[in-house]
Amino acid sequence: MSPMTQFPLPGSAKDTEAGTVLTPRFDGDGLVVCVTQDNASGEIMMVAYMNAEALTATLQTGVMHYWSRSRGELWRKGDTSGAVQYVQELRVDCDQDAILARVICEAANKTCHTGRTSCFYRSIVSDDASGSAVLKFDQE
Amino acid sequence: MSPMTQFPLPGSAKDTEAGTVLTPRFDGDGLVVCVTQDNASGEIMMVAYMNAEALTATLQTGVMHYWSRSRGELWRKGDTSGAVQYVQELRVDCDQDAILARVICEAANKTCHTGRTSCFYRSIVSDDASGSAVLKFDQE
Repeated sequence: MSPMTQFPLPGSAKDTEAGTVLTPRFDGDGLVVCVTQDNASGEIMMVAYMNAEALTATLQTGVMHYWSRSRGELWRKGDTSGAVQYVQELRVDCDQDAILARVICEAANKTCHTGRTSCFYRSIVSDDASGSAVLKFDQE
Repeated sequence: MSPMTQFPLPGSAKDTEAGTVLTPRFDGDGLVVCVTQDNASGEIMMVAYMNAEALTATLQTGVMHYWSRSRGELWRKGDTSGAVQYVQELRVDCDQDAILARVICEAANKTCHTGRTSCFYRSIVSDDASGSAVLKFDQE
C-alpha cells in the first residue's frame, strides 16, 4: 500500500463514532461497502465496494472509483460505459464500515451494466399463488 | 436452515440478472448487504446485513429484520430502541447480492444507536490545511 492510500487505523468505538478522523473499517478483504445515490433524485443507483486505493482515488479526483471484486482491479466507474460519477458528497456511517456517495452521473442510463439508471430494477413481491417471493421488473 | 429460510440457489448470470426468481447471492458468511432508505424523504438511514433467516422474516412479517454481525443473532430492528421499520418496498440488485429496502420508521430519531435518523451523520471533507480528509458532523 502506497502512502497515498493509507488511512489511520480505527481507534475505540467512541473515536470511530464520535470523532472527526476518517478511519475506515475495511473488512478482511480490505473493503468497505459503498452506496451510490443520485444527488438530484435520491435514487439508489448501485452498491459496490472500495478498498483503500479506490477510496483515496475518489477523494483525490472527485470521481467515483471502486474495487471490482469480479475483476480484481481498481475500477474508475464509467471508463468503459461512459457512466462517470462525479462526487457531490461523501458520507461515512457510525462505525465507518460503509460509505454513502451522492453523485451526478453522465450517461446515467448506463449505470447498471444491464443498461439502466439503477441496478435495483426489480422489486420483490409476494406471489399470492405460491406464497413465495417473485421479482417484478419496473425498469424495462 | 429451516425450509422457511431456504431460497433457490443462484443460477447463471443471465438468470440472476434477467429472471423473476429471487435467488440471493449470500456471501461466504451467508449474508447479503441491505441499504435502508426512508420511503418519504429518500434519506439513507443505514446499511446492515441479512442472512436467509432475516430476509425470510422480513418478507413474511413486513418488518425489517437483519443479522447482527456484532451480536451474532437475528435482529428485529427496533425491538430495543423502538425504531421499528415497516417495509414499503424491497428491491434486489442486478447480481442479487444487495437488497434495497424503502421503509416507514417509528421513532426514526433512534434509527442510529447514536440517536440520529441516519447512521450517515458525517460528511467527508477535505482539510485544506493538511490535504487529508476529515469528518464533519451535520446532525447534532
